[in-house]
Amino acid sequence: MIKAGVKEILESGDLLKEFECKGWVRSFRSNRFIALNDGSCVENLQCVVDFENFDQTILNQVNVGAAVLVQGTLKESEGSGQRVEIEVEKLSILGEANPEDVRKTILSPKRHSLEKLREQAHLRVRTNTFGAIMRVRSKLSFAVHQYFNSKGFNHVHTPIITGSDAEGAGETFKVTNFNLDEIPKNDDGNVNFKEDFFGKETNLSVSGQLEAETYALGLSKVYTFGPTFRAENSNTSRHLAEFWMIEPEVAFCELDGNMDLAEDFIKYVLDYIQKECNSDLAFLENRLLQEDKNKPQAERAPMPLREKIDFVLKNNFKRVSYTEAIEILKNSKPNKKKKFQYPIEDWGADLQSEHERFLVEKHFKCPVILFDYPTNIKAFYMRLNEDGKTVRAMDILFPGIGEIVGGSQREERYDVLLEKMKALHIDPEELWWYLETRKFGTCKHSGFGLGFERLVLFATGMSNIRDVIPYPRTPQNAEF
Amino acid sequence: MIKAGVKEILESGDLLKEFECKGWVRSFRSNRFIALNDGSCVENLQCVVDFENFDQTILNQVNVGAAVLVQGTLKESEGSGQRVEIEVEKLSILGEANPEDVRKTILSPKRHSLEKLREQAHLRVRTNTFGAIMRVRSKLSFAVHQYFNSKGFNHVHTPIITGSDAEGAGETFKVTNFNLDEIPKNDDGNVNFKEDFFGKETNLSVSGQLEAETYALGLSKVYTFGPTFRAENSNTSRHLAEFWMIEPEVAFCELDGNMDLAEDFIKYVLDYIQKECNSDLAFLENRLLQEDKNKPQAERAPMPLREKIDFVLKNNFKRVSYTEAIEILKNSKPNKKKKFQYPIEDWGADLQSEHERFLVEKHFKCPVILFDYPTNIKAFYMRLNEDGKTVRAMDILFPGIGEIVGGSQREERYDVLLEKMKALHIDPEELWWYLETRKFGTCKHSGFGLGFERLVLFATGMSNIRDVIPYPRTPQNAEF
Repeated sequence: MIKAGVKEILESGDLLKEFECKGWVRSFRSNRFIALNDGSCVENLQCVVDFENFDQTILNQVNVGAAVLVQGTLKESEGSGQRVEIEVEKLSILGEANPEDVRKTILSPKRHSLEKLREQAHLRVRTNTFGAIMRVRSKLSFAVHQYFNSKGFNHVHTPIITGSDAEGAGETFKVTNFNLDEIPKNDDGNVNFKEDFFGKETNLSVSGQLEAETYALGLSKVYTFGPTFRAENSNTSRHLAEFWMIEPEVAFCELDGNMDLAEDFIKYVLDYIQKECNSDLAFLENRLLQEDKNKPQAERAPMPLREKIDFVLKNNFKRVSYTEAIEILKNSKPNKKKKFQYPIEDWGADLQSEHERFLVEKHFKCPVILFDYPTNIKAFYMRLNEDGKTVRAMDILFPGIGEIVGGSQREERYDVLLEKMKALHIDPEELWWYLETRKFGTCKHSGFGLGFERLVLFATGMSNIRDVIPYPRTPQNAEF
Repeated sequence: MIKAGVKEILESGDLLKEFECKGWVRSFRSNRFIALNDGSCVENLQCVVDFENFDQTILNQVNVGAAVLVQGTLKESEGSGQRVEIEVEKLSILGEANPEDVRKTILSPKRHSLEKLREQAHLRVRTNTFGAIMRVRSKLSFAVHQYFNSKGFNHVHTPIITGSDAEGAGETFKVTNFNLDEIPKNDDGNVNFKEDFFGKETNLSVSGQLEAETYALGLSKVYTFGPTFRAENSNTSRHLAEFWMIEPEVAFCELDGNMDLAEDFIKYVLDYIQKECNSDLAFLENRLLQEDKNKPQAERAPMPLREKIDFVLKNNFKRVSYTEAIEILKNSKPNKKKKFQYPIEDWGADLQSEHERFLVEKHFKCPVILFDYPTNIKAFYMRLNEDGKTVRAMDILFPGIGEIVGGSQREERYDVLLEKMKALHIDPEELWWYLETRKFGTCKHSGFGLGFERLVLFATGMSNIRDVIPYPRTPQNAEF
């Protein structure tokens, strides 16, 4: 008797061997066919019960959602839905599922809306769709570590609680050990942060970049993969208050090397899931095709999911300077016909989502790397170009997703960096340690940040970012 | 010309090939021998300059800490410290390091205390010791993912911001978007959390276990690896306010399987670093031997670092029930001679660090798994034994570290779980989703938590947990 999971049994194809398998009942047809799933793969294991020789009181408990143990022999299947099946010799109920109760949940075997699934996020991984999404997510996550490890990068755990919001990347959440009922104040009426846990004001990190830079300037190649936070009140399908970010940082690397790394990295992880998650991707692809049938032609996906991933794998990302992009946008049909909400008139304009989508989806029809942005729309740590008005920034834009990567060559020159901090009213005292890395053997270095959930969105074809993370955190929502 | 890192060049041993290498100067002897390090390994690359044929103004800038580019031919070394060296043909300074400034930092070539290194945590990874520690940490981290991925586990990112401290695992940090100067209050004077970002009180997670359980009950085998937080004001060498935890959770698994998993897992990751980090471990081992020379015999490590790791790999962890452990402790010499600060008198006592250390370091002299603890000293979610007074808990104790793993079989019976929550005044409404997983196909399941930094402590032989994480967070300290 071999104890094994569904995936292992299906892959083994060891006919006539005896197996024991535990899982949950997805369906039970004709008092005879149990579809057993244990989450190891999207496929179910068909278990055939010769009901005349089984205790009917046990069979009566084989309800959708119940946990069961099955023992039996693997046989070729006579049915058309599967190649093999288990001829059940022993069957026990491990955990019941009352059909009346199940009917009220998303476990009941009918189509539930994604909204409904979100309300029962503690159960949704037991559906085919969310099982597939979360397995793809897990494999993508592993591929990230695999890629960087194989390239000699060191994984660095940068701090989550930080003492300053000097980077100014947006609104941060405050972290405190104060009793919010009675915040200690100074004589002048201000909050007395000296009495808080860390003796100062602290926030949740918006990025591990600055700390990762200090490590790249010693270990040469590092990356982070951790949670980051934004307290922005934007309730969109692309934003989360808590999300995971991957941030590589490389010493002795300029912007071109940074673009090469980002492109190579994204292709590696997507190629990895094409190989490792084919049946999950096939399921998700089919799900999208079904969904598209109810949509007008214009809104349907231009190609099936796996073809879309292959397209990214097989084509070079188009590298376009900001200046070129502005020219293209200025002369574009939607701009001339005043179809853009924000018309492009002059060099220096910040690109909006509508412009990015036009470039990626209409003009180039492939992933695009925009680089050399105007200084004043980018962060202080990006390296100033010789022209004095652009910085060595790059954004990677993906069809259907928008910005998936934001990166830059960092300003490694002490004086230039100090100047920019002052100009942007960033207190050099606050970031003394960051500045100091430019004093002792500074060097050209670059890095980028990739929002992991956006990558999962792209890879699974889902359209709402709340559906690619187990328990999403958004404004007014920290349930579970 | 092959562009390569130090590790790659040393491992290639490609004599007479031309290499280009960038890194930082660790030392420059006799105007001739540059020790170049780029963080890829603990070893330096010796670069030999024929100073008579080089511009002395450049050589004058080859100071400790400077970033340089070296081009030259790999030759067998005539010196005794290394097998190969680069005969330098071209040398450029990429980033200067003023010797006057360097002298004030830990980059200066002399012994600095670990305390001093902590104050300059942004530079300490450029020392041999911290380079080695952080490479070992990174490889351990990769080994974690490698292990679970190869065993069919899915990586689950459980939420960091959570809506309840129902688990009661200790003091939690509060997360808020309120302006602490003016907290909105209700008419009754209480804080009006409805106005906060999430519309409720939120904290930083102390564990991803409960959410991971919901995923194990769908995907069968999952693990988390994320940051967790404790707002405990304990300034010890073993506690951090922010640390990383690994939490596997397995459906259809009882306590014995859980112990097997934990032991197999720990051995896998330690074996992995023995193979992958040998030169870093050799360096750290030697560091400890040097340190021990200044200590009295009794305080010295019983065996060298790599031997200690091998000892864990080659011996079974000793599995001992709490009840047996109490008997051993009751009859132990230190107990009889009243040497324990907390004498062991009766069954039911909570074990203190001194007892754990006695069991592991004096009595069994190997890692110990204690199991079946009294109900009232363990968490509500642990499975009640038939005896009605113990739960299926297990702790793994390591020599020199103490508790490295805490785990249990979970209470899968709805009624028993509800009963225990009520008894411990945990509001079932707060954890409705957790309870509900016991209604629909519940099953026996188990898991554990392993504090990653404690594992790194053990693997590197360091004694202060602040020295095995890049930027430690402790009471009164959130610098960098």
